[in-house]
Amino acid sequence: MVAAGKGTRMGPGVDKLFIEVAGGPLVAHTWQRLDSSPSIGEIILVVREGMQSTFQDLASQFHFKKRFRLVVGGRERQDSVWNGLQEVSRKTEIVLIQDAARPCTDEGLIAGTIESAREIGAAVAAQRMTDTIKESDGGTLIERTLDRAKLWAVQTPQTFKLDVIQRALTAVRQGGLVVTDDTAACELIGQPVRLVESRTPNPKATSPSDVAFIELLLKSRGVESLATL
Amino acid sequence: MVAAGKGTRMGPGVDKLFIEVAGGPLVAHTWQRLDSSPSIGEIILVVREGMQSTFQDLASQFHFKKRFRLVVGGRERQDSVWNGLQEVSRKTEIVLIQDAARPCTDEGLIAGTIESAREIGAAVAAQRMTDTIKESDGGTLIERTLDRAKLWAVQTPQTFKLDVIQRALTAVRQGGLVVTDDTAACELIGQPVRLVESRTPNPKATSPSDVAFIELLLKSRGVESLATL
Repeated sequence: MVAAGKGTRMGPGVDKLFIEVAGGPLVAHTWQRLDSSPSIGEIILVVREGMQSTFQDLASQFHFKKRFRLVVGGRERQDSVWNGLQEVSRKTEIVLIQDAARPCTDEGLIAGTIESAREIGAAVAAQRMTDTIKESDGGTLIERTLDRAKLWAVQTPQTFKLDVIQRALTAVRQGGLVVTDDTAACELIGQPVRLVESRTPNPKATSPSDVAFIELLLKSRGVESLATL
Repeated sequence: MVAAGKGTRMGPGVDKLFIEVAGGPLVAHTWQRLDSSPSIGEIILVVREGMQSTFQDLASQFHFKKRFRLVVGGRERQDSVWNGLQEVSRKTEIVLIQDAARPCTDEGLIAGTIESAREIGAAVAAQRMTDTIKESDGGTLIERTLDRAKLWAVQTPQTFKLDVIQRALTAVRQGGLVVTDDTAACELIGQPVRLVESRTPNPKATSPSDVAFIELLLKSRGVESLATL
């Protein structure tokens, strides 16, 4: 779980991961998803320096049951993922990478990306585009209408065979590149990535209205909510 | 206001425009936006055959004040827009096209697209992409990562000088083409279209979770809500 980002769109001084929604901080909901998933063995939390004790406290407060380790993130998202990869157990076959700010991911998507990663090496949760998408070089005038039927918005989980993501991120680092997501690293090494359609909303908290929508989704879920004592 | 679509993603027999949200049917909120906008003179409602009296009743129920006309829509969205255009008053300079299923559009976006359309002929409300977008021909494997910085999701209002949208849709009809939105018609005749950034959420109701989000947004607005007696 990548929880080392700083997100700047929520306003100054606001750490989006700790905004309270539906009975707990947003990041606790995401952690809960992974903690309760029968498909996941151990959890590596990649966090910002200085946040380790805060995450330790969360584990106690919400009674997470699964073994976890804390790792400090790097400069870019890909560096954080890299740091996390150094900590996975040796026998690990599949690594699932989850944005900490995406708490509504359902078990079907977790299990679905794992199954596809086992088959072909890499898979990603993705949503078909419902809006018409235009391309604009300067951000002022429309240059081109894209073919919506071919477009997918990728989310997390992004799930890989361990050796695939290791090779892909090694290529990124050796090339001195910055990629927007881990599947882009796969494209570099010619590794195919399967799209696993996300059929329920799986938003990432980036703006205050996202948080309001997430709260609505979490509350409507009810039964799977956070357990506190 | 284009209210002639059938939307199939909401479930069988559900007309999304008449789902009750925040004190009235969804379409009444959209109409209210246009009715209360100081930038708009008259309203043409493009509706499905047989729905005319339902819309007449809405006008009475919610005390809409602005002059409106009802027109029956066509087979494709572009045919509905075309039918609507036949009914605008002769002295009209600017036509603003609004999805009936998009009730959260704010006055800034209405006024902003009108201003830009006056300047260069065509403008559209659009949102920067926050997700990473991938292209896939077959919908199974990722083929290519697009440059997110250049991508915009277009919404409505889509706003035009009257002669521009008339010429653009004439070209579409003469070519026997189907376009996803009215700005795509402008691309056909080489008419530049300005992107007007949508800074507050402006979702279209397409699925049940969109409706839940829209209700949240409408309720948080409070003061501008529907007036009934």
